[in-house]
Amino acid sequence: MDTRTATANIGVVGLAVMGSNLARNLASREGNTVAVYNRTYARTEELLSEHPEAGFVASETIDDFVASLAKPRTAIIMVQAGAGTDAVIGQLVERFEPGDIIVDGGNANFHDTIARESRIAPTGIHFVGAGISGGEEGALHGPSIMPGGSAESYETLGPILASIAAVAEGEPCVTHVGTDGAGHFVKMIHNGIEYADMQLIAEAYDLLRTVGSLQPAAIADVFARWNEGPLESYLIEITAEVLRQVDPATGRPFVDIVLDQAGSKGTGVWTVQNALDLGVPVGGIGEAVFARAVSSKPAQREAVQRIVNSRPTVQEADASFADDVAKALYASKVVAYAQGFDAIIAGAEKYGWDIHKDRIAKIWRGGCIIRAQFLNRIAEAYDENPDIATLLEAPYFAQAVADGEAAWRRVVATSALSGVPVPGFSSALSYYDSLAVKRLPAALVQGQRDFFGAHTYKRVDKPGTFHTLWSGDRTEVEVPGH
Amino acid sequence: MDTRTATANIGVVGLAVMGSNLARNLASREGNTVAVYNRTYARTEELLSEHPEAGFVASETIDDFVASLAKPRTAIIMVQAGAGTDAVIGQLVERFEPGDIIVDGGNANFHDTIARESRIAPTGIHFVGAGISGGEEGALHGPSIMPGGSAESYETLGPILASIAAVAEGEPCVTHVGTDGAGHFVKMIHNGIEYADMQLIAEAYDLLRTVGSLQPAAIADVFARWNEGPLESYLIEITAEVLRQVDPATGRPFVDIVLDQAGSKGTGVWTVQNALDLGVPVGGIGEAVFARAVSSKPAQREAVQRIVNSRPTVQEADASFADDVAKALYASKVVAYAQGFDAIIAGAEKYGWDIHKDRIAKIWRGGCIIRAQFLNRIAEAYDENPDIATLLEAPYFAQAVADGEAAWRRVVATSALSGVPVPGFSSALSYYDSLAVKRLPAALVQGQRDFFGAHTYKRVDKPGTFHTLWSGDRTEVEVPGH
Repeated sequence: MDTRTATANIGVVGLAVMGSNLARNLASREGNTVAVYNRTYARTEELLSEHPEAGFVASETIDDFVASLAKPRTAIIMVQAGAGTDAVIGQLVERFEPGDIIVDGGNANFHDTIARESRIAPTGIHFVGAGISGGEEGALHGPSIMPGGSAESYETLGPILASIAAVAEGEPCVTHVGTDGAGHFVKMIHNGIEYADMQLIAEAYDLLRTVGSLQPAAIADVFARWNEGPLESYLIEITAEVLRQVDPATGRPFVDIVLDQAGSKGTGVWTVQNALDLGVPVGGIGEAVFARAVSSKPAQREAVQRIVNSRPTVQEADASFADDVAKALYASKVVAYAQGFDAIIAGAEKYGWDIHKDRIAKIWRGGCIIRAQFLNRIAEAYDENPDIATLLEAPYFAQAVADGEAAWRRVVATSALSGVPVPGFSSALSYYDSLAVKRLPAALVQGQRDFFGAHTYKRVDKPGTFHTLWSGDRTEVEVPGH
Repeated sequence: MDTRTATANIGVVGLAVMGSNLARNLASREGNTVAVYNRTYARTEELLSEHPEAGFVASETIDDFVASLAKPRTAIIMVQAGAGTDAVIGQLVERFEPGDIIVDGGNANFHDTIARESRIAPTGIHFVGAGISGGEEGALHGPSIMPGGSAESYETLGPILASIAAVAEGEPCVTHVGTDGAGHFVKMIHNGIEYADMQLIAEAYDLLRTVGSLQPAAIADVFARWNEGPLESYLIEITAEVLRQVDPATGRPFVDIVLDQAGSKGTGVWTVQNALDLGVPVGGIGEAVFARAVSSKPAQREAVQRIVNSRPTVQEADASFADDVAKALYASKVVAYAQGFDAIIAGAEKYGWDIHKDRIAKIWRGGCIIRAQFLNRIAEAYDENPDIATLLEAPYFAQAVADGEAAWRRVVATSALSGVPVPGFSSALSYYDSLAVKRLPAALVQGQRDFFGAHTYKRVDKPGTFHTLWSGDRTEVEVPGH
């Protein structure tokens, strides 16, 4: 069709489930005309016949697809991250003009997004890496969207994305996160926080089951009750659903017939690796990633179970145990989110992004896996004072942690004595205590490093850098030039 | 000097403290004639005048240096990792011939070593990345050396390195680790383990100080006593020295005048990042790296200390508390080393290295920071059965952990209740419990992932991959093709 007129204000390339759902979402909103293109046209035809109501402008060739887009041309790529993305980008860059906009809506590594943006920028075409959260359902009914790229591109793109984003308390869950890779970076941190949140919930479940002696259906009731209070969140809600599920085949609780080896898809790993580069401690996320890895080592688990003679006697839980666990969960969750936002702050500084933490918290209130009322508290904290050193010092969270602290300590202690693995709860508590104590044994570590490697140290009582002559007379020398 | 005869069997490029110490070490051994070269000749002259006994063959130009080497020419580069290394490699590659050997003895990232080896291999010149541990003292008196590269190059290089390596129980602390980057990889893991070991010792100290109410000098006595038993190690030994030290300026314990913010130099971070890539849980190393990072966030620490109203009452310790801490330290240390060796096994598999775990344990017995009798137990475990799934199942370690388990649990519980941060101890205990329990709550995580993302799950009672129709009638479907 070479007489095609440019009628579509937005195009989608890649019509697998995420892409076609996003295209349908776009088409369902007032004012959008959606061009679609897929490498194999059969898939496009399938989508057209299944969803005639969408009024898609379909193209069999990439040339026709580009011709069907009104200027500035705006296309969202929804293909497998990696080589596929680069191939489509190449096709579009060849055909687009300065001012046009290419959006990568896949789960790209933000380092790749930065590199792509920098490669494409000289053409005058805008390249936008956009994190899109919420999976297939989110894509169809309203995701949380985290676009990076230039502020100029957002003038065109913003209203289109706002039309399809989830809405939380009247506000669309989309904001211009920052330039180049900022969107994919924040999406990565979102996923890292998701790992931590899920691990903490899993530990809470395990404690209620093992120490609390509750059955899954009863624990589902506990989670449903928690979902009415400060822990309210999508993950708590679906945990109750999962725990209430009975396996149709066996009549056993669903959670008992599922193989206990958790998979992962990379963004959790990326979060920890990048936090390490940024010098940001994210133990909550790290332990969650490691917990999944341990679970997926059946040979090691079997080996240790073979040699273990006896397991500790489980401590008896009294009626208040579930409340203790709720408080431990909440406090640990505050730590995990505080660490995640610290990583965002450090990433923004390193990569030169002007990220508004309160807006990030707000766009996570809907359309994504970690959506929760809780995020309003984070938004309020950063809105009130964007320069707080940690979320833990925000009055609301400081009070919440103080209220739960004793319970948190009891839960971690009970877990240790009962043999229930709580890497998330205990890492979070140690992190909190590391910040709260006046002196850390890091002083000893500095002494060791000076002893074996002359790494020098600083003193508490005067400026300068020092070294003790450990293999000499053990006097101290000041080291100039540090 | 253009009439130079090739008299040196080994050369050293880069004569800063590590390079000159290594050159002096080489020169002091029977049979070695050592050529030396430094970019600025003044440094070379300084070394010559300070150490005439070494009989160095010095060169002012790289051409003369190369001419002074007998064939196969063998040169060890001891310059700052990075661009400096590449520049020297380039100079040598231009002048060396097939069969000659270039050794990078710096702290290179093993990924760089793999890339360099692959770039240089077509020239017929051997490129060897060698991890050299033990700092300045080790370089001079006998380091632990971890060379990678080709087996052929090791025929020439091995005897030279064996002549200068530390000796442990009659054996030189050097072995051909594996091809290309294997040596630098294993050196990286060594450093990661070192981080974990130091953190665990720091936690033990903190507990003895805070919960045990002991002063540094008394804790030095405890560590000195521990150094007579199964915890015997260089790090325990120097910890006693550091804790016994009194600050000459103030008369206060040295450890109390050192600023409690620990630095790091990258290899700990690399270890965790690479373990994440390899899917190996290394919580012990991860928490150690994060603990240093937390200590170096004074603004966050001050912020939290400002809002904390009260700290928990420290639990009273009885006379057996120090013994409990020793057992917790030992068990946690076993976990950290088990995780480190798991990373070596996974790295060897991914990068195609034939690494003998028992030999690695043996060459770490001397000349490096983690040297300890303990490594004999690891060597024995892998010698007896190289295919154990984890060090924790080796009879000696299984027994040691079983003996210490109750104490370990008490220490972690007491720490939680007392507000002493023990990220290392508690991460290690959770790891152990994760392996030891019959069922992990990873099953719930899989259920959540299937609920929100259709990630599917496996069942305990039959093969296949399944998905529950959570937003439908909640029946289960088998997912083909997985």
